[in-house]
Amino acid sequence: MSYKREECGVFGIWNTGNPAEKIYFGLHSLQHRGQESAGMTTTDRSSLKHFAGMGTVSKVFRKSSMNIIPKLSEETFGGIGHVRYSTAGASMRDNAQPMVAAYSQGEVAVAHNGNITNADILREEYESTGSIFKTTSDTEILIHMLAKPAHINKTDTIAHVMRHLDGAFCVLYLFPDRIEAARDPRGIRPLSIGKSQDGAWCVASESCAFDAIGGKLVRDVEPGEIVTLSDDGLSSRFFIEPGSVKPSHCIFEHVYFSRQNSRVFGENVHIARKNFGAQLAIEHPADADVVIPIPDSGTASAIGYANQSGIPFDMGFVRSHYIGRSFIAPTQEMRDLAVRLKLAVIKEAVEGKRVIVVDDSIVRGTTTRGKVRDLRAAGAKEVHIRVSCPPLKFPCFYGVDFASKEELVANRMDMDALCRYLEADSIGYLSVDGLLSCVNLPPENYCTACWTGNYKAPTHRARSKDAMGSSHKMLFQIEDVR
Amino acid sequence: MSYKREECGVFGIWNTGNPAEKIYFGLHSLQHRGQESAGMTTTDRSSLKHFAGMGTVSKVFRKSSMNIIPKLSEETFGGIGHVRYSTAGASMRDNAQPMVAAYSQGEVAVAHNGNITNADILREEYESTGSIFKTTSDTEILIHMLAKPAHINKTDTIAHVMRHLDGAFCVLYLFPDRIEAARDPRGIRPLSIGKSQDGAWCVASESCAFDAIGGKLVRDVEPGEIVTLSDDGLSSRFFIEPGSVKPSHCIFEHVYFSRQNSRVFGENVHIARKNFGAQLAIEHPADADVVIPIPDSGTASAIGYANQSGIPFDMGFVRSHYIGRSFIAPTQEMRDLAVRLKLAVIKEAVEGKRVIVVDDSIVRGTTTRGKVRDLRAAGAKEVHIRVSCPPLKFPCFYGVDFASKEELVANRMDMDALCRYLEADSIGYLSVDGLLSCVNLPPENYCTACWTGNYKAPTHRARSKDAMGSSHKMLFQIEDVR
Amino acid sequence: MSYKREECGVFGIWNTGNPAEKIYFGLHSLQHRGQESAGMTTTDRSSLKHFAGMGTVSKVFRKSSMNIIPKLSEETFGGIGHVRYSTAGASMRDNAQPMVAAYSQGEVAVAHNGNITNADILREEYESTGSIFKTTSDTEILIHMLAKPAHINKTDTIAHVMRHLDGAFCVLYLFPDRIEAARDPRGIRPLSIGKSQDGAWCVASESCAFDAIGGKLVRDVEPGEIVTLSDDGLSSRFFIEPGSVKPSHCIFEHVYFSRQNSRVFGENVHIARKNFGAQLAIEHPADADVVIPIPDSGTASAIGYANQSGIPFDMGFVRSHYIGRSFIAPTQEMRDLAVRLKLAVIKEAVEGKRVIVVDDSIVRGTTTRGKVRDLRAAGAKEVHIRVSCPPLKFPCFYGVDFASKEELVANRMDMDALCRYLEADSIGYLSVDGLLSCVNLPPENYCTACWTGNYKAPTHRARSKDAMGSSHKMLFQIEDVR
Amino acid sequence: MSYKREECGVFGIWNTGNPAEKIYFGLHSLQHRGQESAGMTTTDRSSLKHFAGMGTVSKVFRKSSMNIIPKLSEETFGGIGHVRYSTAGASMRDNAQPMVAAYSQGEVAVAHNGNITNADILREEYESTGSIFKTTSDTEILIHMLAKPAHINKTDTIAHVMRHLDGAFCVLYLFPDRIEAARDPRGIRPLSIGKSQDGAWCVASESCAFDAIGGKLVRDVEPGEIVTLSDDGLSSRFFIEPGSVKPSHCIFEHVYFSRQNSRVFGENVHIARKNFGAQLAIEHPADADVVIPIPDSGTASAIGYANQSGIPFDMGFVRSHYIGRSFIAPTQEMRDLAVRLKLAVIKEAVEGKRVIVVDDSIVRGTTTRGKVRDLRAAGAKEVHIRVSCPPLKFPCFYGVDFASKEELVANRMDMDALCRYLEADSIGYLSVDGLLSCVNLPPENYCTACWTGNYKAPTHRARSKDAMGSSHKMLFQIEDVR
Repeated sequence: MSYKREECGVFGIWNTGNPAEKIYFGLHSLQHRGQESAGMTTTDRSSLKHFAGMGTVSKVFRKSSMNIIPKLSEETFGGIGHVRYSTAGASMRDNAQPMVAAYSQGEVAVAHNGNITNADILREEYESTGSIFKTTSDTEILIHMLAKPAHINKTDTIAHVMRHLDGAFCVLYLFPDRIEAARDPRGIRPLSIGKSQDGAWCVASESCAFDAIGGKLVRDVEPGEIVTLSDDGLSSRFFIEPGSVKPSHCIFEHVYFSRQNSRVFGENVHIARKNFGAQLAIEHPADADVVIPIPDSGTASAIGYANQSGIPFDMGFVRSHYIGRSFIAPTQEMRDLAVRLKLAVIKEAVEGKRVIVVDDSIVRGTTTRGKVRDLRAAGAKEVHIRVSCPPLKFPCFYGVDFASKEELVANRMDMDALCRYLEADSIGYLSVDGLLSCVNLPPENYCTACWTGNYKAPTHRARSKDAMGSSHKMLFQIEDVR
Repeated sequence: MSYKREECGVFGIWNTGNPAEKIYFGLHSLQHRGQESAGMTTTDRSSLKHFAGMGTVSKVFRKSSMNIIPKLSEETFGGIGHVRYSTAGASMRDNAQPMVAAYSQGEVAVAHNGNITNADILREEYESTGSIFKTTSDTEILIHMLAKPAHINKTDTIAHVMRHLDGAFCVLYLFPDRIEAARDPRGIRPLSIGKSQDGAWCVASESCAFDAIGGKLVRDVEPGEIVTLSDDGLSSRFFIEPGSVKPSHCIFEHVYFSRQNSRVFGENVHIARKNFGAQLAIEHPADADVVIPIPDSGTASAIGYANQSGIPFDMGFVRSHYIGRSFIAPTQEMRDLAVRLKLAVIKEAVEGKRVIVVDDSIVRGTTTRGKVRDLRAAGAKEVHIRVSCPPLKFPCFYGVDFASKEELVANRMDMDALCRYLEADSIGYLSVDGLLSCVNLPPENYCTACWTGNYKAPTHRARSKDAMGSSHKMLFQIEDVR
Repeated sequence: MSYKREECGVFGIWNTGNPAEKIYFGLHSLQHRGQESAGMTTTDRSSLKHFAGMGTVSKVFRKSSMNIIPKLSEETFGGIGHVRYSTAGASMRDNAQPMVAAYSQGEVAVAHNGNITNADILREEYESTGSIFKTTSDTEILIHMLAKPAHINKTDTIAHVMRHLDGAFCVLYLFPDRIEAARDPRGIRPLSIGKSQDGAWCVASESCAFDAIGGKLVRDVEPGEIVTLSDDGLSSRFFIEPGSVKPSHCIFEHVYFSRQNSRVFGENVHIARKNFGAQLAIEHPADADVVIPIPDSGTASAIGYANQSGIPFDMGFVRSHYIGRSFIAPTQEMRDLAVRLKLAVIKEAVEGKRVIVVDDSIVRGTTTRGKVRDLRAAGAKEVHIRVSCPPLKFPCFYGVDFASKEELVANRMDMDALCRYLEADSIGYLSVDGLLSCVNLPPENYCTACWTGNYKAPTHRARSKDAMGSSHKMLFQIEDVR
Repeated sequence: MSYKREECGVFGIWNTGNPAEKIYFGLHSLQHRGQESAGMTTTDRSSLKHFAGMGTVSKVFRKSSMNIIPKLSEETFGGIGHVRYSTAGASMRDNAQPMVAAYSQGEVAVAHNGNITNADILREEYESTGSIFKTTSDTEILIHMLAKPAHINKTDTIAHVMRHLDGAFCVLYLFPDRIEAARDPRGIRPLSIGKSQDGAWCVASESCAFDAIGGKLVRDVEPGEIVTLSDDGLSSRFFIEPGSVKPSHCIFEHVYFSRQNSRVFGENVHIARKNFGAQLAIEHPADADVVIPIPDSGTASAIGYANQSGIPFDMGFVRSHYIGRSFIAPTQEMRDLAVRLKLAVIKEAVEGKRVIVVDDSIVRGTTTRGKVRDLRAAGAKEVHIRVSCPPLKFPCFYGVDFASKEELVANRMDMDALCRYLEADSIGYLSVDGLLSCVNLPPENYCTACWTGNYKAPTHRARSKDAMGSSHKMLFQIEDVR
């Protein structure tokens, strides 16, 4: 898959030794949810300590190795962390999270995963009453709302704030004396509760973060629930009537985003993907000699496909582990080669064979076509593309940064044309119903908008990627150079 | 002098080619006003571009040499810049200025020099109505006040905001279509208007910034005045009745802060210092063989003293030009040597002589005593200390970061004791009246609070350095590591 | 596998456009052969350009992105490159290759892969006649030998030099007007000849480097052969009588070192590994529910094992792609967790199952035991370890940096004890004969010394890892800090 | 003065605690002798530790602040250091000194100040017998000569090596068990012996280095002398018959290079410069109102001139302390301004006055003319240039990197034309005889070749700056990027 990664990952822990190390490991395991910035905030029960920067978790915190992590752990016992993939315009250092601020009640830090679809409306409303915004991120509104005097007077400020929000959101507030973690009423993005080896309560975007610190998943934060992690342990309340809103889990978390060892929406990602592959084999069989994945995201589905079809599984591509930001090649020829560095064909695995290639999705199609060409150049007799999800046709307003609608190749041509465009011998996509039959919850509990256009949560269209560039409030801020 | 440098420097220019380069040069010439962070914001008439970082101007902008400066100049034609010396708590990257934000009227950037003495009061007031603060800097309140709906409705928002402020302040607001520059009613800190070689209007903390871009000083911004730099040229208005408040210029700008080639409060700094030295020779003569300065800040006064007294002037110390942040020496012996690296005695210039040493001020006394010892070790027969300002006894609430009252050696002992403490043969300080007789304006037009305790502008004592640590709103934010 | 990576990778190309980019891509594809330093030298036919540094290829050359690579390409048309894994003592910037020097015939650069077993003897001999050494690397002797007047007078200096060397070596000399590439008489390490898309001759440690630049493998450099790449094309000669020495290819290149898409010693690495896995299933069957690899190096063998045994293949571990140099965790608990970040168990893939885990080798055993424990914690009912090569028992003197003999767990206990130590239900290693039956060449054409102790090339035992620390010539040079 | 700085500075110390810190301070005080690279090597009596890099002393060693300096001091007790100004071609990291190598007798490090005029001849001779050179620096030959078997057999190898060298050289060899320090037979460059506070013997290019570590100058190393610093204390021998060669001290050390607080060739630099100024006032009086220096190098001479003439001394320029490597201004207008940032005119000090400006020398004349124009723009009525040395007309072959002969303005025009070119009202240079009358030693003991063309030491003209570019042995090595 060539599109941009989505969203963000959040992690919080309370009442543990060395909190900064645990947050570090938790964030590291969530790194696939965002590589653009990383940060964490810890508390010593009276004030906050903070560090954030551009880049991956290990890049941001490595710099000062012996220093920053121990300093953030010193005299502290809990905190929150964040990894981020920028979804808006230029990447900016000031948008790195957690975001820390002081307000009338003291200090607070916020880490947020998702997309608040009425953020622009709220922002305009707050600006009109005098608020100033120092970043372009949705997250800043979460602090403004918390600080509003009318909200402070409410019995439950956080619940009140949450009820104003539309869209997909998992919010972690860190106060000096507690963490409050809330999940949107539809539970679009995952958020789970865990326990560390030393018995500390944790929250995380995915359960793999609990594994990473030697802990365990306890349960999911329910849609519409707020959980408080404090010295009194874990307590829970709901900001909407439980069950009053139908859940709408993003099934793309299973298809692509979440990590294979995570348990999201009640089941394991790897198993779900194998099921997708098996179902794909039923829906779109092919007469072939070998099934190969586009590693690593297509591997589980390819195994499922191979098991179901009885066609042998093999690795046809080698993935490089050393791809970093490389230099910008001045010629097109060189840029084409640079793409090939990431996945190299194993000629001997495909030569003279009829090959089924399993990928998790197709966005623009150019990357896929490049792989088809590589396979043919290596001597593959036939190339059959199998995709473990339905065709992507609609933008996501809940936190995923696909290409624009016009760029999505499935909007531009029908299956026959696409097959020819990709220079494949056949192509098969998993059906929506087939996909939904592979997971545990009832079909109506999932969001499938990117395939069907059926948006269940309000979208306030202004937040679409296409519209964002025009906002007069977008500061162009040159990225901090290191 | 060993105390911390004060304040900040600001620079703005409108309607010029390559604005970022001119701001760079302007800031560079103001570098003595703050080395902790540097930044600039430019405008293309519809949106702002911004870059800031920790360190000196050349360090911050060098990194990306061929890149950042040209990018900030591209399609822009004006902007503002800032150099900063942190006066509050830990130094923080987020406190670097200009500070940029979006509010209901669009984007704005602010650069500020001075100390708003009622900032804490205002901050509390704004927090109580829901404002959030992301930095610990006074400057943020300047944007909040601008954004307040009640203020936006005023005929002249900026004037209205300025009238709410107490203390010392020179504020530059950059909007996409203009710069607004305001100076406090007492004119405590300097702020001047100039013109560049290509006829562009400029504002700067000191006139040396106009020299640096090949331009010229035109006049000072008057106390209580707001000037607008826009495509319509320069226009002026007052936010208080002109003349309704007596000026109170910080005479320490002449003694120490301002650069020798600047013209502040209507006269040249170098000439003022020579006058101080001459007056010092009248008030505190000494029978000696040579007059030497503590370079570079004591040089002008030493020349003035030598001319007046007829005793030959010479250089007795060599200043190193290569002092940067050096390693932290693990032993006391090594730390003592490190101090000596900066100023080395020329033995042959002082050996066997009765030496008058002219310095601009004494804070804790330890540095001065070290110099006396160095001179004796080099063979000086007598060492007479002459200080070109009165004894420092009171904290400054208008932007200068002296040591605390307890640390000021002049509070801890009388002249005899001080002379013995410094191991000098005699000591003489310039008198307040003597000092005031050396400058052009009437004595009552200057602030002399650090010597006399006579504070003319409201101080709201809470803002004293001593009190600041206790504020519960001070975030401890670990400095950005590079 | 937890032991240190071996060796180095070399790449050379002649008569092409943008040589530096092609060398960059070639080195990138050889990155698995050494991540400690990277460098390249190009020629404009009259003089050499050079750049090298510590770190991976993309780290070293990224820094100056738009700069270094184009500069190295400017007016040049060929060159050589090197990636390196330090095998001796502290890693040192000065040991980065290619090594460049001037001698009586002009300039020369050398890139070397392997281990010259008589290097110490030669070094001592040259020192005794006045040579000085500025590095601790074997490579420096290769230039001294070239520069020796007695050698320059020989008809074929390079051939003469090669005849003096013992051990494993692939040497690339770059002169302003040609590349000379030589391989040791036993062909211990691989070295191949290829052609780029634009018809330029290339040499590389592995054929994957030709794929990376869109080129093709032509043939291997023969043991004892020297090939010259010049404006006259490719020419060949032998420095020993062809066939006079029996080849002794390092079969560990197939087991672990070489990349899956490379063709070394005449056959593809991925296919060889699948064969190893199949043979392993024959030699050591197990009654189990699933076969999982330690990714990525065990994946091919696990597929081979699964195919042969009929037991389903699955992924039981997820590998993190974001492992970099992380901070040093201060507690043992945290260090244990850090190891787990790299490979996380997919609980649902192994829970309640009898699991066969295929790995490529076992060195100290601690990592393997950690994996067994992780699988049991995830609920695996049985864990059967299968290793796709024989037990490692002897040090390598030909360029591989294993642990010391004492550390190799297979020397410390028999199979039963090892099985208990690893906490496994059973353990099975591939036999030497079984392994050799899986590859194309006659068994006697391979080096199996690390399993059998049968060293075919002179070892001059002094060069063993154990002995090296004692040399009085080892400079301790603190690594260049970045 | 605008020409490039010369040479290098060396420092060595034996038998002290924290040797690395003392070397750091010593080098720091010698920083004016070279800012391009810095390095040091220490010894624990059996092996050497080394660290070097590009940039100033504080930049190179700051990076790792708490790390490198303590590591270099750990278990060591002596060592040598070097600061360097590149005189040859591109600046290269590998040319940073000390240079460390292993040879038949063990390890050795060399730090060198000066210019060996027969280096090319020696280099060619050594290359013809098989030596290889990894740098373009003269210094490498000093190790090759040491390592030559024929030399090792001599009773006194170092003395033997020294007798082969022509030109100006001060060489420090560090062996694990001692330092050997030698100075050329003419004593062209300074080299002194000192003692630290804790009684350790030191050698340094200038005595200011002893002051910097709290020590004292003992005496100069004599021309043709070798001193050994070892556990037996200090011992001395001569490699030529003492007195057999007339000294030829570079008087430019007094005029410009050496630091004002140093004592070179038996007298203090500051005093010598004041004498030059006084003599200049006798030779070239002027009817004027004020004498101002070009700071800092012209300050002492200007004081001397003012004292002698009775015309008041003042500062007319302010020097910026924040000049670093700034960005490269894209326009000429901006580049002109950049030059002005370093020295700003104090308008009020010169306005309406007849001004005498004292500078230490004039190379191309453009900088001087710029200053004259600045003074006129500031309102000076007359500008009289006085130069405290004779006109520079000849290249230096002994270590100083002047402009080429053609660029030296004094070769291109007579005094009248020069005065017009500089746009001055008058110009006066100190005479050679006048200059020599100001210093203690007999006139024939100084080298005045840059003014008179009278070269006393062999120059082997090939070593002139003009010829150096043509050597086929100059590697183009791209500088290490940081």
